Amino acid sequence: MYGTIESLDRLIEKFASLPGVGKKTAERLAYGLIMSSEENVRSFSDAMLKAKENIHLCPVCQSLTDKELCSVCANEARDHSVICVVEDPKVVLSLEKVRQFSGVYHVLHGSISPTHGITPDKLKISELTERVAKGGIREVILATNATFSGDTTALYISQLLKEYDVKITRLAYGIPVGADLEYADSITLLKALEGRREF
Amino acid sequence: MYGTIESLDRLIEKFASLPGVGKKTAERLAYGLIMSSEENVRSFSDAMLKAKENIHLCPVCQSLTDKELCSVCANEARDHSVICVVEDPKVVLSLEKVRQFSGVYHVLHGSISPTHGITPDKLKISELTERVAKGGIREVILATNATFSGDTTALYISQLLKEYDVKITRLAYGIPVGADLEYADSITLLKALEGRREF
Repeated sequence: MYGTIESLDRLIEKFASLPGVGKKTAERLAYGLIMSSEENVRSFSDAMLKAKENIHLCPVCQSLTDKELCSVCANEARDHSVICVVEDPKVVLSLEKVRQFSGVYHVLHGSISPTHGITPDKLKISELTERVAKGGIREVILATNATFSGDTTALYISQLLKEYDVKITRLAYGIPVGADLEYADSITLLKALEGRREF
Repeated sequence: MYGTIESLDRLIEKFASLPGVGKKTAERLAYGLIMSSEENVRSFSDAMLKAKENIHLCPVCQSLTDKELCSVCANEARDHSVICVVEDPKVVLSLEKVRQFSGVYHVLHGSISPTHGITPDKLKISELTERVAKGGIREVILATNATFSGDTTALYISQLLKEYDVKITRLAYGIPVGADLEYADSITLLKALEGRREF
């Protein structure tokens, strides 16, 4: 009976600790892994350690990278005076696919949600204000999700940046309200970039 | 930009290889893992290796176990002349929760589905016929899922076991057709056990 196998319970618990994974899903994933080859389990385990070892946050934009700087921040051809602020590193990839944005990014790693214990200090907001305070920034595009917490975050940041001589914009309508930016298609994202308005 | 980070792509690929995990989910899981502490990644990786190392199939019933025999097969108080045949080790746990079945189990690890390349030889069916051929078995309860492939598997096994002097039963109605046994509640499972009929 598998319910009393300690090492399996521990593995299920680990899977269940990942975002959006419930008990039943964790059981299915653990079972799937156990039933795969020993070689696969070894390489999976190795992939985890390697990824954690190699990947860190870009010291400038807080996106994930395995280099000193991420490829966007390291690219001198980009416009470093325009910062696009996003909640999640996955959104950077979605925006890059549009091939229309030549500025740089700033990843917050979440949005303000006091009910979930996510206060501004848990996000990479001070890193953003520091970037702006250093000067040389023309525009900050607030590309947080079109959700309540995304809007709250955008409002919060816009208040913080008011004291600096920087244009603050928010992604335009075009993004369906309530949707997650990560799943937006390229054309919707392009429209949203083009129609961005003063915050 | 995280899309070009080799070690991350490899981790995403590994997550996507698990059953029922698509590309977007794999990205979310990999990101969640990377953003957790180094200690957590280490213990997750360790939990995988330990589980794979310790857990194997019970040589009698093919369920998962970390002992020589699983706890059901090793229990002399159980009725070893009644075998309940299930598709998945998770179903064993569901049936055990009913606390009404005193026989033993046999786990097939799937059901016959030629369109998905799952032919009878890919399942633990020969291990079942061997158990029956050895003698001492009074009844085989076919508790495969109430799906097309589950029914097909039950029919296939019932044909194979016809030559032996053994009563073959199938779980009764009570299980909603098209449903997965893993998610059935205890009362439904109890009714299905009580109402089992000759195959």
